[in-house]
Amino acid sequence: MSKEKPYPPQYYQDYLRLETILDSQKLKSDEYGQHAHDEMLFIIIHQVYELWFKQILFELDSVLDIFSKKEINETHIGTAVSRLSRIIEIQKILIDQIHVLETMTPMDFLDFRDFLIPASGFQSVQFRKIENKLGLKVEDRYTYGDANYCTYLHESDQEKIKASESEKSLFDLMESWLERTPFLNWGETSFWDEYEQAVSNMLHDDRRLIETNEKLSVIEKEKHLTEYAKTEVSFGVVLDKTLHNKMVEDGNWRLSLKATQAALLIQLYRDQPILLNPYRLLTKLADIDELFTTWRYRHALMVSRMIGRKIGTGGSTGSEYLNKTAEKHRIFTDISELTTFLIPRSALPSLPIEVQDNLGFYFHVKENK
Amino acid sequence: MSKEKPYPPQYYQDYLRLETILDSQKLKSDEYGQHAHDEMLFIIIHQVYELWFKQILFELDSVLDIFSKKEINETHIGTAVSRLSRIIEIQKILIDQIHVLETMTPMDFLDFRDFLIPASGFQSVQFRKIENKLGLKVEDRYTYGDANYCTYLHESDQEKIKASESEKSLFDLMESWLERTPFLNWGETSFWDEYEQAVSNMLHDDRRLIETNEKLSVIEKEKHLTEYAKTEVSFGVVLDKTLHNKMVEDGNWRLSLKATQAALLIQLYRDQPILLNPYRLLTKLADIDELFTTWRYRHALMVSRMIGRKIGTGGSTGSEYLNKTAEKHRIFTDISELTTFLIPRSALPSLPIEVQDNLGFYFHVKENK
Amino acid sequence: MSKEKPYPPQYYQDYLRLETILDSQKLKSDEYGQHAHDEMLFIIIHQVYELWFKQILFELDSVLDIFSKKEINETHIGTAVSRLSRIIEIQKILIDQIHVLETMTPMDFLDFRDFLIPASGFQSVQFRKIENKLGLKVEDRYTYGDANYCTYLHESDQEKIKASESEKSLFDLMESWLERTPFLNWGETSFWDEYEQAVSNMLHDDRRLIETNEKLSVIEKEKHLTEYAKTEVSFGVVLDKTLHNKMVEDGNWRLSLKATQAALLIQLYRDQPILLNPYRLLTKLADIDELFTTWRYRHALMVSRMIGRKIGTGGSTGSEYLNKTAEKHRIFTDISELTTFLIPRSALPSLPIEVQDNLGFYFHVKENK
Amino acid sequence: MSKEKPYPPQYYQDYLRLETILDSQKLKSDEYGQHAHDEMLFIIIHQVYELWFKQILFELDSVLDIFSKKEINETHIGTAVSRLSRIIEIQKILIDQIHVLETMTPMDFLDFRDFLIPASGFQSVQFRKIENKLGLKVEDRYTYGDANYCTYLHESDQEKIKASESEKSLFDLMESWLERTPFLNWGETSFWDEYEQAVSNMLHDDRRLIETNEKLSVIEKEKHLTEYAKTEVSFGVVLDKTLHNKMVEDGNWRLSLKATQAALLIQLYRDQPILLNPYRLLTKLADIDELFTTWRYRHALMVSRMIGRKIGTGGSTGSEYLNKTAEKHRIFTDISELTTFLIPRSALPSLPIEVQDNLGFYFHVKENK
Repeated sequence: MSKEKPYPPQYYQDYLRLETILDSQKLKSDEYGQHAHDEMLFIIIHQVYELWFKQILFELDSVLDIFSKKEINETHIGTAVSRLSRIIEIQKILIDQIHVLETMTPMDFLDFRDFLIPASGFQSVQFRKIENKLGLKVEDRYTYGDANYCTYLHESDQEKIKASESEKSLFDLMESWLERTPFLNWGETSFWDEYEQAVSNMLHDDRRLIETNEKLSVIEKEKHLTEYAKTEVSFGVVLDKTLHNKMVEDGNWRLSLKATQAALLIQLYRDQPILLNPYRLLTKLADIDELFTTWRYRHALMVSRMIGRKIGTGGSTGSEYLNKTAEKHRIFTDISELTTFLIPRSALPSLPIEVQDNLGFYFHVKENK
Repeated sequence: MSKEKPYPPQYYQDYLRLETILDSQKLKSDEYGQHAHDEMLFIIIHQVYELWFKQILFELDSVLDIFSKKEINETHIGTAVSRLSRIIEIQKILIDQIHVLETMTPMDFLDFRDFLIPASGFQSVQFRKIENKLGLKVEDRYTYGDANYCTYLHESDQEKIKASESEKSLFDLMESWLERTPFLNWGETSFWDEYEQAVSNMLHDDRRLIETNEKLSVIEKEKHLTEYAKTEVSFGVVLDKTLHNKMVEDGNWRLSLKATQAALLIQLYRDQPILLNPYRLLTKLADIDELFTTWRYRHALMVSRMIGRKIGTGGSTGSEYLNKTAEKHRIFTDISELTTFLIPRSALPSLPIEVQDNLGFYFHVKENK
Repeated sequence: MSKEKPYPPQYYQDYLRLETILDSQKLKSDEYGQHAHDEMLFIIIHQVYELWFKQILFELDSVLDIFSKKEINETHIGTAVSRLSRIIEIQKILIDQIHVLETMTPMDFLDFRDFLIPASGFQSVQFRKIENKLGLKVEDRYTYGDANYCTYLHESDQEKIKASESEKSLFDLMESWLERTPFLNWGETSFWDEYEQAVSNMLHDDRRLIETNEKLSVIEKEKHLTEYAKTEVSFGVVLDKTLHNKMVEDGNWRLSLKATQAALLIQLYRDQPILLNPYRLLTKLADIDELFTTWRYRHALMVSRMIGRKIGTGGSTGSEYLNKTAEKHRIFTDISELTTFLIPRSALPSLPIEVQDNLGFYFHVKENK
Repeated sequence: MSKEKPYPPQYYQDYLRLETILDSQKLKSDEYGQHAHDEMLFIIIHQVYELWFKQILFELDSVLDIFSKKEINETHIGTAVSRLSRIIEIQKILIDQIHVLETMTPMDFLDFRDFLIPASGFQSVQFRKIENKLGLKVEDRYTYGDANYCTYLHESDQEKIKASESEKSLFDLMESWLERTPFLNWGETSFWDEYEQAVSNMLHDDRRLIETNEKLSVIEKEKHLTEYAKTEVSFGVVLDKTLHNKMVEDGNWRLSLKATQAALLIQLYRDQPILLNPYRLLTKLADIDELFTTWRYRHALMVSRMIGRKIGTGGSTGSEYLNKTAEKHRIFTDISELTTFLIPRSALPSLPIEVQDNLGFYFHVKENK
């Protein structure tokens, strides 16, 4: 870098193209001669949202790139974790920004709402690309009527989105990476045997908790026990090929058995230095999922306070749509739900020494004498 | 105050009873000789929650007191608004604090979870009192099995809660206050006629938006129109005694017709100085509702990450319970949904001059010459 | 509005000019063939900052407009308060956004820092306009060397900023408005006499607190008492023309005596309904000041962690500049410091009944019988 | 754990000792028959602060324990990082909580302020212990008058604090740990030679930036260059024993040369997997420092708005004290300022292969074929 110095001097306003950017707010209410003060905020906050979406896509693409590589080393995972962390910080801002929009009252919004129809946040091309790149499948989208989620978009925009449908998503790449992790191969048989035993003990204890609870009525006990039976079955997801397949078929699980097992091992042995970054990676994915859920949910609350039960500018009952998608559009729930399968540290099979050596490293700092 | 000065000097640690408070953390894991580092956090954060609940109850009681008075003047409403604002700031902390609890990992929790059973946040006496005092009705509570929401509590605690069931709640008192507001009586006939006309125009326009939308398929249009018909009916809540009663019977509305109308007028004419504090009051109530909803919801997400689908320490599938109550335990939804009935400022009937004089005041600052 | 319906349909991406906005990020590192991943974030976050600055200026201009009117009624003040509240919510986002920038490490920044020189946030035209419009005087600016704060800007940009120097600022307009408020004229003599007496009692008590404190050494007592003497003198700001002038000359006070007194009365009698909005207005101004202070301060901490003691891209030791301006560029400190002059409610002279009638209104809600 | 099951059932209110805790708020204003509503908040928020201080001390002690061990392995550092992260989340709450206190107005505070004198947050034993345990030295404390920082405390409390003065602080232990890290020993000579060269190039470039800047006046240039000379000297801190000693003597640096060098290497090569946790550790320490600084600063702003320039309940001019300590009581500034010594990745000497093998590990995930 140093040879070519000095580079031509930059001017802040030009470097950031501020002349263009700050001249891109054209109020429809002004065009129609009915100035509505709050339309400026409406435009600017949506432009800010879209700038952040661009940044999220930029980070997401770089992470997809990393996980598309044939060899993924520790440093790569570290980089991916940093970039996902950045997405998370941006998501927090997306959520906090709703407070700014909430300074616009419903009456203020009514002053220009009719001018915008049917433009609406549902038409954000970038946001749909983000959802696709994360791994939301077309068939898992909440749809309103029969409409495809791209119906209302211009053709060129539809194409951009379709492209992102067919690429490998972060979910897909993360799944393959998990399946390829070497730590699945050590002491496999014995580990899963010991783990199954520990689970069985734990479930047995929990069932007894219900059965011996004197405060529960007969009906309540039955309810609890029925539900508990389901929990027992759910362990099949990680322990049994047939039960796992069944869960996947029924739409209650998505991650492959092999990837599920690898993810669980990462959670269980995350104290191993080499598993620290893989563990952080899984956590970040669950965080991103949770924050988009929170965002949709907070957004729905805000829309509901803004327009009540009226239809949104996009022609749908907006707050309902957002509420429905909040849960339905989650992608990494399997990761969050791995906690179901944790067992106490005391019951955890200890790592055979060869595996420890293979997996991690021990780095002892000795006294300086 | 000045005569009795000086007061005996106070010592910080004594004034705050720190010796007692800081000696109230007894780890069960220590008692059983199995020290679990994270139990300390578990105890302290719950104690902090309960201290904040005490403060919320203290503010809530003072607001209930204000609204129990025969005469409620403007200053009283101002005081109520300040105290509700304080509750809101505390609620934000309750929500943010979840981040501290999230530094405890599921594995860390498993280290002491079994020692606590069946103690659980569901047993918080103060939180149930808050819900009752706000106006949650016993029959509106989400119940698990047949169990009453007090089943698991000691008898003396059950009594405390029962007492709060029979007192007038904030919802009740706010409703009576709204019904008594004088501004309901002005130009009544003409106002509701003009308002009804404005609503009808607005609905007509909105319906046309659906009918003329070429992008919608026949089926989608039908769906939209069915939904729209519901919206039209929903205006009965504020315009029609019979439809209002029907909505109340069906459990879709709670506020009396008279109170609903008064609340809507406050929203529509909130620019009038005298309606500023009443408007802020209604807004704060909706905020409190929304923040408790967010708190339950965020809490549910956290519990779900902590224990997965396992049963909570209280013997129920914790995260499900919280998720169910998040929406079901809302109390002031009628207030939030008033935005459904807003009409554009341009369509708003203007206040007759006598009413303006009666209602507010105009305080002109003249140039100093 | 209804006659002209329907308006031509809007398309989200076009309405927001997204094609332009999302195409305005050109990385210098790419231009020089040395792609630095984090430059994208650097560009986007600064563009977002500038969009928010535009919104702040838009709200600020509308508030300046309101206070430039000959007659300012209650509703106007209400509108001003809402718009200042919006600025406050935006400021919170400006501060929170620093967390996003902090995901860029110092090493990542070094990868493209040299390409940008001397572009720097110090060149933000909009931010300087905000400071001028709020009321920062040229002579109160912290300067580095002899340089005028516009030295590094293009001429056309310098002109834009100079224009904002000569306009009446929010500080100026707020001061005139305070001077014109009618409530200064009631019972003036008697009020200030009673207030002076109450102050004198309070100060006397406080002095005794120091003198009778047995734990203080002779030297400490002397120190405290010297400082206390200053407090006594400082009351001159609100009570004595000569002392007030002296404080202004010494640069320790800015607000005129008349405006200071009006502002203090608003604080003391803010429970009066008619003073509620004026009180909120003063509070918002102090909030805005405090939040820009916090922003500069947090920004300085971030820069210091990013570049250490190195010079900034603008050629100055960045973090030091920001730290210096944090306190020095405050504008409404006089408002915040009014609390110095509060006296206990019990010592507060009560309002003569004619003044109460004149000032406010009492709006009794009677029982419905 | 499983053998002894089931444990005796716990009751939420008893487990948390709520009867005691919720009965520990005794209002002085009630005792004197002059009920001041806001005193409850004052008590509760301070009790909450002290509960959080207890939690911080608990985590801090466990981290001190870890670093007092003879052998510190990677897992230990991971645990320390988690616990410091928890302290950080608590600190964020300490700061946010100020918003709750700000709902108390200055007038409300005056209603009970006199009853509390001289009790004051300055008397918090726990907070002083936190400062000591982090590594604040008695001689570095900002003092008011000649008074020792414990003067106003009861003797038993003074003793508790004194004890924490003589123990090894987190600063001390972190310094020894850094000095003992093995990675200081590799390729030492050559590394520091190459680094010195890279620094010299970078400084040379930066100096030329000033010299060739046509916009700077002669005086400005001189100012910049003088300041720059200081930057050059400051590199001695990491490169030169004599200059380092000088900086330490002058009170401008605290960390030993060896520890400084180790910390810098951790920063420079933090992409190495094995340095990830040490890097996070250093970052957390800087974060904790920064957050306490922000807390003191925000606290000072709040006190200043609450009491203006009056003396605090503890007999000192409160906001000034807090403002002075905000910067002066920082402990890990050396860590934050290490960024001064970073050099671009491109100029970074690459790690000899034996060192890489020794330090870290490479963990390649191969394609599964």
